[in-house]
Amino acid sequence: MTTASTGQTPAPIAQGSLNFDEAAQTLCRLGHLFGQRGWLPATSGNLSIRLQSEPLLMAITRSGADKQLLTPADIIRVDGEGRVMDDVPYRPSAETVVHIELYEALGPGCILHVHSVANNVISERMFARGYVEVAQHELLKALGHWDEDARIRIPIVENYADLPRLGAAVREVASATVPGVLVRRHGIYAWGEDAFAAKRHLEAFEFLFEYLLHMR
Amino acid sequence: MTTASTGQTPAPIAQGSLNFDEAAQTLCRLGHLFGQRGWLPATSGNLSIRLQSEPLLMAITRSGADKQLLTPADIIRVDGEGRVMDDVPYRPSAETVVHIELYEALGPGCILHVHSVANNVISERMFARGYVEVAQHELLKALGHWDEDARIRIPIVENYADLPRLGAAVREVASATVPGVLVRRHGIYAWGEDAFAAKRHLEAFEFLFEYLLHMR
Amino acid sequence: MTTASTGQTPAPIAQGSLNFDEAAQTLCRLGHLFGQRGWLPATSGNLSIRLQSEPLLMAITRSGADKQLLTPADIIRVDGEGRVMDDVPYRPSAETVVHIELYEALGPGCILHVHSVANNVISERMFARGYVEVAQHELLKALGHWDEDARIRIPIVENYADLPRLGAAVREVASATVPGVLVRRHGIYAWGEDAFAAKRHLEAFEFLFEYLLHMR
Amino acid sequence: MTTASTGQTPAPIAQGSLNFDEAAQTLCRLGHLFGQRGWLPATSGNLSIRLQSEPLLMAITRSGADKQLLTPADIIRVDGEGRVMDDVPYRPSAETVVHIELYEALGPGCILHVHSVANNVISERMFARGYVEVAQHELLKALGHWDEDARIRIPIVENYADLPRLGAAVREVASATVPGVLVRRHGIYAWGEDAFAAKRHLEAFEFLFEYLLHMR
Repeated sequence: MTTASTGQTPAPIAQGSLNFDEAAQTLCRLGHLFGQRGWLPATSGNLSIRLQSEPLLMAITRSGADKQLLTPADIIRVDGEGRVMDDVPYRPSAETVVHIELYEALGPGCILHVHSVANNVISERMFARGYVEVAQHELLKALGHWDEDARIRIPIVENYADLPRLGAAVREVASATVPGVLVRRHGIYAWGEDAFAAKRHLEAFEFLFEYLLHMR
Repeated sequence: MTTASTGQTPAPIAQGSLNFDEAAQTLCRLGHLFGQRGWLPATSGNLSIRLQSEPLLMAITRSGADKQLLTPADIIRVDGEGRVMDDVPYRPSAETVVHIELYEALGPGCILHVHSVANNVISERMFARGYVEVAQHELLKALGHWDEDARIRIPIVENYADLPRLGAAVREVASATVPGVLVRRHGIYAWGEDAFAAKRHLEAFEFLFEYLLHMR
Repeated sequence: MTTASTGQTPAPIAQGSLNFDEAAQTLCRLGHLFGQRGWLPATSGNLSIRLQSEPLLMAITRSGADKQLLTPADIIRVDGEGRVMDDVPYRPSAETVVHIELYEALGPGCILHVHSVANNVISERMFARGYVEVAQHELLKALGHWDEDARIRIPIVENYADLPRLGAAVREVASATVPGVLVRRHGIYAWGEDAFAAKRHLEAFEFLFEYLLHMR
Repeated sequence: MTTASTGQTPAPIAQGSLNFDEAAQTLCRLGHLFGQRGWLPATSGNLSIRLQSEPLLMAITRSGADKQLLTPADIIRVDGEGRVMDDVPYRPSAETVVHIELYEALGPGCILHVHSVANNVISERMFARGYVEVAQHELLKALGHWDEDARIRIPIVENYADLPRLGAAVREVASATVPGVLVRRHGIYAWGEDAFAAKRHLEAFEFLFEYLLHMR
């Protein structure tokens, strides 16, 4: 309420390409915003921004950090082999391999992985079907589907403890037209061409999941 | 909690007529407050304040901005033909045509369009009936209905992808006595004589929708 | 999150007697805290602190203010006849008469009237019975009931549009042992010996109502 | 939203051993964070950090404080007999005896006791069984269970008004492998090797309880 109350101007979430410092600042802000929504409980979740493509270099949250209270020191640079490129005592998130698979397959600029109660419940309820379908909802426009009769399917994969296997499973179902994949009893990976678009996509998915919980 | 904790004085939401700078500040604050409630997900929603009547001139949020993190630069002036009156690279919201229809039909000072899970669920559940009815509830007073047996119907229209058609549909059912119209699986348009009244009306509608979800 | 993040020290809610300035500051802080919980929608609710007893003088929120964004200028002094004792253009809350009845009957130091979705739903569901019963719950201790088998009944009255009648109805059922009365489809009046105790009581009631909604 | 909006850097929750001042600051921050989640209603809950082991010395919230608005003055030092070691007019929390039992039995660095609507509902619904079981959920990793088929049981004890009896009951069921115990219609005790780990465990439990409420 502070911002609203005191008239301070919030910095917008960046659009387009970012250098490492800008990416670290942006990931911290996303962590704080999503943390307040309850989407990053118990040090879970991981957030990344692509810094360059060939070879792949990303800024990503380190393993074990409290993502609700991220500071730039919690953001590290990781290459396409999952190697930390900074002289820091931190490991990248264990799920970095999923980010790498998605960057390689679809080339987004930002990937956001969060755990919400709504996405967990939907992922379990709809797992047997393999996807959750959303039709004719206004927020499909925020996902790039502008048709009045738009209908999308968000894939759901099993929550393999073996992370390379999880990464391959996510990559297999990920598509260029629906920027998100659910992992059963775990969370969602959502992405976009930059941090701004990835945030928009993630918020659209989460809104739709909460809507579906009520419409059941 | 900051304001409450630190004793900072929040600026009130303005009553009465505003110039462009005041309107831009007020729309930003409304965006921040509603954003914290989850009512402006995924860059959705649009908020406007009438600056003058004949000819119509409004301040309105630009298309594509993150309405949770609005800055004055995201607010533009648009006339009654939907033309941007500032030398900016931004387009007005695609739904500006709905604002124009409502300003022309009913002459409010402010129009607030938001997406909440509650208003989406109610709009879908009650769509076949064409309206949602609320009776004998204290918050009807906040909508201008003071009678102990007050009963109102909030109209619901189809979510036409064709926005001029949507604007005409909203205008057709909008009335001077119930300051809001629901759009199916989309959101609500609420309005008032100024930003203060429009905020009051919107909050009353949203409270009533959440109440109805539980009373089902 | 600011306070928690930045280590700023929040001022505690005052215990004991307060002068007018202290009471105004305390009511503003309570308004901000409860507003963030969604308990003061659409300018609804009213909050008061007793400044002296004989004759009665209270500090109370003015009618029509946005209670989420209260400033000290929104707090006025009112006597036991409901007369404004300050040279201000504001009227006291229309429900001041209920505050007066409760101050006269039970002599609390602070009265808090808020609208929550939970208290509205409970007030409607249990209205025919005339009360909502809560048994053997830890939070009954916060209401002064320490016995392991404690059981209380929170009375519910009809929402009379005639406010003196509402005040008399609330007074009739209000007791020294259960510091709250529900008004059907409207809200709760909760009170305590000072602002600190009234806040504790209100939060206990609201927690219990949310618990009851789930236990249904 | 302030932190996120303004780019202020939040201080992380401390890992490892703390002195009294650091422990007091950390407990205040945890109180503010959990208070914003609604987990510390009505002055309920108590939070402690172990300062030394033999003999036991802890920093713990004083009885009666509003845990949402904690200040360092609300934190006192208490020994293994429950004696206050500071020259202050405050008593320790009445439930200090439960903290002592847990520190003696399992030797954690931090114990967090909070009341949430979700943990209250689960504690009542599953009381007859004596535990709540969670299986194959990603957040079990945050509780130290990394196996793909992990399955844990969180014990539930009766809410004895006699606190030494409650302490003994909690101690009897507390185990080194599941860092939490539910108390029926009351709340949860969660712990960890330090404040950081205890926060992670508590957030994992609360997320799982909310998930279970929906999956019912």
